[in-house]
Amino acid sequence: MSEKKVMEKKLKKIGAKIGDVVRVTKKDNKYEGVMMPHHEFSDGKIITLKLKNGYNMGVEIDDNTKIALVKKQKEISKKSKKIPFDEDKPTISILGTGGTIACYVDYRTGAVHPATSTQELAFSVPDIFDICNVKTEVVYQMFSEDIEIKHWQKLAKTIAEELNNGSNGVIIPHGTDTLAYTSAALSFMLKNLSGPVVLVGAQRSSDRPSSDAALNLIAAATVASKSDIGEVVAVMHESTSDTSLAIHRGTKVRKIHTSRRDAFKTINDIPIGMVENGKIKINGQYRKKTKGKVSIDDKLETDVVMIYSHPGLKPKDIPDKKGIILIGTGLGHVSKKIVPRIKELSEKGTIFAMTSQCFFGRINMNVYSTGRDLLKIGIIPCEDMLPETAYVKLMWALAHAKNRNEIKKIMQTNIAGEISKRTRSDTYL
Amino acid sequence: MSEKKVMEKKLKKIGAKIGDVVRVTKKDNKYEGVMMPHHEFSDGKIITLKLKNGYNMGVEIDDNTKIALVKKQKEISKKSKKIPFDEDKPTISILGTGGTIACYVDYRTGAVHPATSTQELAFSVPDIFDICNVKTEVVYQMFSEDIEIKHWQKLAKTIAEELNNGSNGVIIPHGTDTLAYTSAALSFMLKNLSGPVVLVGAQRSSDRPSSDAALNLIAAATVASKSDIGEVVAVMHESTSDTSLAIHRGTKVRKIHTSRRDAFKTINDIPIGMVENGKIKINGQYRKKTKGKVSIDDKLETDVVMIYSHPGLKPKDIPDKKGIILIGTGLGHVSKKIVPRIKELSEKGTIFAMTSQCFFGRINMNVYSTGRDLLKIGIIPCEDMLPETAYVKLMWALAHAKNRNEIKKIMQTNIAGEISKRTRSDTYL
Repeated sequence: MSEKKVMEKKLKKIGAKIGDVVRVTKKDNKYEGVMMPHHEFSDGKIITLKLKNGYNMGVEIDDNTKIALVKKQKEISKKSKKIPFDEDKPTISILGTGGTIACYVDYRTGAVHPATSTQELAFSVPDIFDICNVKTEVVYQMFSEDIEIKHWQKLAKTIAEELNNGSNGVIIPHGTDTLAYTSAALSFMLKNLSGPVVLVGAQRSSDRPSSDAALNLIAAATVASKSDIGEVVAVMHESTSDTSLAIHRGTKVRKIHTSRRDAFKTINDIPIGMVENGKIKINGQYRKKTKGKVSIDDKLETDVVMIYSHPGLKPKDIPDKKGIILIGTGLGHVSKKIVPRIKELSEKGTIFAMTSQCFFGRINMNVYSTGRDLLKIGIIPCEDMLPETAYVKLMWALAHAKNRNEIKKIMQTNIAGEISKRTRSDTYL
Repeated sequence: MSEKKVMEKKLKKIGAKIGDVVRVTKKDNKYEGVMMPHHEFSDGKIITLKLKNGYNMGVEIDDNTKIALVKKQKEISKKSKKIPFDEDKPTISILGTGGTIACYVDYRTGAVHPATSTQELAFSVPDIFDICNVKTEVVYQMFSEDIEIKHWQKLAKTIAEELNNGSNGVIIPHGTDTLAYTSAALSFMLKNLSGPVVLVGAQRSSDRPSSDAALNLIAAATVASKSDIGEVVAVMHESTSDTSLAIHRGTKVRKIHTSRRDAFKTINDIPIGMVENGKIKINGQYRKKTKGKVSIDDKLETDVVMIYSHPGLKPKDIPDKKGIILIGTGLGHVSKKIVPRIKELSEKGTIFAMTSQCFFGRINMNVYSTGRDLLKIGIIPCEDMLPETAYVKLMWALAHAKNRNEIKKIMQTNIAGEISKRTRSDTYL
């Protein structure tokens, strides 16, 4: 009997289904948790439990492992819920993409179920319906680390359609791992936005007591329906408390902590604003939404890579690509040992652009001779742009420019708030 | 006449030498500044001026460029100064390596001169002699982005010699770009330290009003001569004010800003301590210095590279190496598209270890199936280790272990404070 069959038989015997609480006994260890949907990557012999502490754990099931049913999950009504509509409220579109925020439970009944539709996601946080009318669509359903360039393009197309069909704003629930890459990509691809485009994620799934999913979604709905922002933004917890949420510019936001709820920060700038007690407070400058049609400019050159500079990096570690984002040291440097290789590739046509592995601060390649030598070769300094944003922008620039000078001009022009104005703090703090 | 000759002739005519203030007039532009030593990378026709704002600028000199002498630099006494010796004071060794901190001026007379000896560096901050006796040596003199593995090894050897010859501690003035890589490398290479090993840098050269060079050096001398720390640490400005300096563990420190004086932070831990008003305040646990002999364990495998994971990264972007540090997204993920390539290389013998591009926080590859799949392949999770530290440690582990299991064991054992204990904040903040 195959391993998968062994497990299926055991589960059938005790009548346990996805969403039920089970106890697995293996030698002297006991594991109790909610049985999660089977993931395509997992072995057939692995059962995935969501433990009480909120973490998922895979346990290998063999002939000697015991499984007992502890509690059936509460029944979820099968009849299709109707989304309420109030003609006095603005209408927003929720476009599902996957991620932790979509691994939700009904946060009042506690029943765990996979997010098979964005509609269900909206219903799991019914407070949204007090704020706005909701249209929902699942664009794709995946872990955000698997998102590729083609997914950005599909998403941009759907966003433009929703706004051009009358939605006041768009919410995109998204996995946090690559949320900032997507928000930067959308910032360059979408033009003339007639409403806010709000990416939102969760660091803790909504079955955990400390989940940020509901509050982040409610704040995102507030920004999408009530603000006049015509930019791509990310709305996430601003601190570890539940009192305020930040509105980050899509090209300036970065995930700087693996697990904290306030992991997302605006880097080298202040957030556009905050959401506090359901009210939007604006802190910084932003582009206002327009009354025209949204257009898409989604061509991207995919032969681009990010290279992290470090001691011991060898000339042959720099590949032959159309574009390379160097994540240099300090103000924008690499070892002189790899400069000849950069020169060689650059002469053959590779476009190099420089960012810093410090993340905070601006690069300045005029201070030391290493930087000046790189400028002489033609490397494009990316000012205070985040490496992730510079990567997306270089893909976009390569697909939109006819020659090296045009690419350089695009990279050094502030298109979507990705380059901050120089301030005194850039040099003197 | 060659370009170099054109410039030499012009300079000779007006009697201008390195260190003098000159005014260069080119078309309608005037540039005034201190003439800096000629750098080997610069063109023969470039003159480098240190402007009043502290920045260096290269100006191209041609037949039509005018150069005028504004002010001769103050004469520096040519007679060799004798370093004072006080037998009641501890003795430390200053080992020069280069970097901004070595681009100094006499900070009282304002005269600019290149750091031709570490002795001069010590004399530029004579307050050090109130704290300790000083032995000086230049180990090498280079930009820190050019430092390679062999330089770490030479430095480790010299440090061990100095401590074993009776020095109470060692100071290593170092460029800030790769200071944290060097401090991590030394942390693994030096065993049984009989005194503090203190790396110190400057974000602003000492001819700038906001220079941090002098204060950082004085605090470093305090830690090297008065503390009982038996670890490799970095001492740098703790805030933008001049009131306190932090003592960072060598494996936990990172440069997180391109230009601020408080750019160095202890990540995922608290600093070992502070230096305030010349006094050392200890905050955290540390290894005490021993009374034995320092030994060196400096074997490193150099066929290791750091790979920054990002959307669009392709299987062929993962090279065939003995070791690869993945800088993954979030809790330690990569796109499922590159997992087969990782599996293939791993089966052929490449050791992969996972860190996070979030920098703050701990990776946890058990939460999502992507992480679990990578663990199954044998990828080593690096807990809350910094990518830079994990890189250096993997080079060290590969050179010290006989097989995959031993490498894994070394990577997951806390050797030099590089892995913090799990705390509640790792998951619940």
